[in-house]
Amino acid sequence: MTAPRRGLSSEPGILRTTERTRLRRKADRASDNAEIVAAILDEAMVCHVGVAIDGRPRVIPTAFGRIGSHLYLHGAVANSMLRALVAGAEACVTVTLIDGLVLARSAFHHSMNYRSVMVFGGGEAVTDPDEKRAALAAIVDHMVPGRSQATRPPNDGELRATLVVRLALDEGSAKVRNGPPVDDPADLDLDHWAGVIPVAMIRGQPEPDAATPTDLSS
Amino acid sequence: MTAPRRGLSSEPGILRTTERTRLRRKADRASDNAEIVAAILDEAMVCHVGVAIDGRPRVIPTAFGRIGSHLYLHGAVANSMLRALVAGAEACVTVTLIDGLVLARSAFHHSMNYRSVMVFGGGEAVTDPDEKRAALAAIVDHMVPGRSQATRPPNDGELRATLVVRLALDEGSAKVRNGPPVDDPADLDLDHWAGVIPVAMIRGQPEPDAATPTDLSS
Repeated sequence: MTAPRRGLSSEPGILRTTERTRLRRKADRASDNAEIVAAILDEAMVCHVGVAIDGRPRVIPTAFGRIGSHLYLHGAVANSMLRALVAGAEACVTVTLIDGLVLARSAFHHSMNYRSVMVFGGGEAVTDPDEKRAALAAIVDHMVPGRSQATRPPNDGELRATLVVRLALDEGSAKVRNGPPVDDPADLDLDHWAGVIPVAMIRGQPEPDAATPTDLSS
Repeated sequence: MTAPRRGLSSEPGILRTTERTRLRRKADRASDNAEIVAAILDEAMVCHVGVAIDGRPRVIPTAFGRIGSHLYLHGAVANSMLRALVAGAEACVTVTLIDGLVLARSAFHHSMNYRSVMVFGGGEAVTDPDEKRAALAAIVDHMVPGRSQATRPPNDGELRATLVVRLALDEGSAKVRNGPPVDDPADLDLDHWAGVIPVAMIRGQPEPDAATPTDLSS
């Protein structure tokens, strides 16, 4: 296994698979290939950040951005999850894309097709203004590619009001299930429908807000 | 505040909002209305279960079912997350539905429209065979309503191989954002597009597996 790459590389390397991230069952679903990890992260709209606060687990859905081999989270400076990370709490960041409902002939073999990533690590507050601006741009561009160039960038007051936390894509792994149900041979003659119902996140027609001029020539 | 309802009620009551689940900022987005909580849970395909294992947070995406005011998780008997819960670890179960990307004229006011639920509590292994069967049916029916009636139900061996864990919908809350971006008044004249890009999970055309007879009359 190669050593983890660090720094703001645009080409993430191989993530470390540790005792914690090694899949114990269904290991064929696992991957530590950083390109697969990055592709899953980039497609997801939110991640779920797990952190212990006062010793108790909390799982918070939040937007994020990626630059090379780092994830960026952001929030108000008083955000308790971000403050816990900056204070040294470890995070588990999980991203999940659902691709299909897998309907087998037996209830037991029902499953889902999915692509998920789990990343472990500590967070660091981003204090360098250039990195902070780049991270916030990455978070906006993660929603809509190129969007950061089509908005008013953060001003100094907004930057001060925002806490940005960086996590290294270092220790973690991807897990992918794909394909049809796997029924027991004895069940194949049963008269139940079996197969996959594909599911996907789609984006609809953009809805301009009320302050948008209705006459685009005005 | 009313007392939490317990038991397998089909009409969940009001969840307890505690110091931990009370929203500190943007409190107008919060709800402890159990009907809202239940509707969000029922629409989500997966939940993210956060639990500390060996003192470190882990966030695991998983299918689930709901019966009244209880959530049910399931997995192999060796599943480390379920075993941690049964051994007394506390869970934070989070469900997130993304409804829209909220694009403001400023990067700072970008947001998402979403509906999320966060539930805290301990888990209990379900040992009663009837409740276990009902829970597994609820998990399958959560994927496709009525599906449990159109499959081979679990046999005794499959039941023994499956660990089912019950969590009470007791302490928790929902959080909802909806509507257009909220720009600073000074930004309203900027020439940037602003509004909402709706997003939704959709289900596609079911794809029968290879063992399905192509001639339905056969």
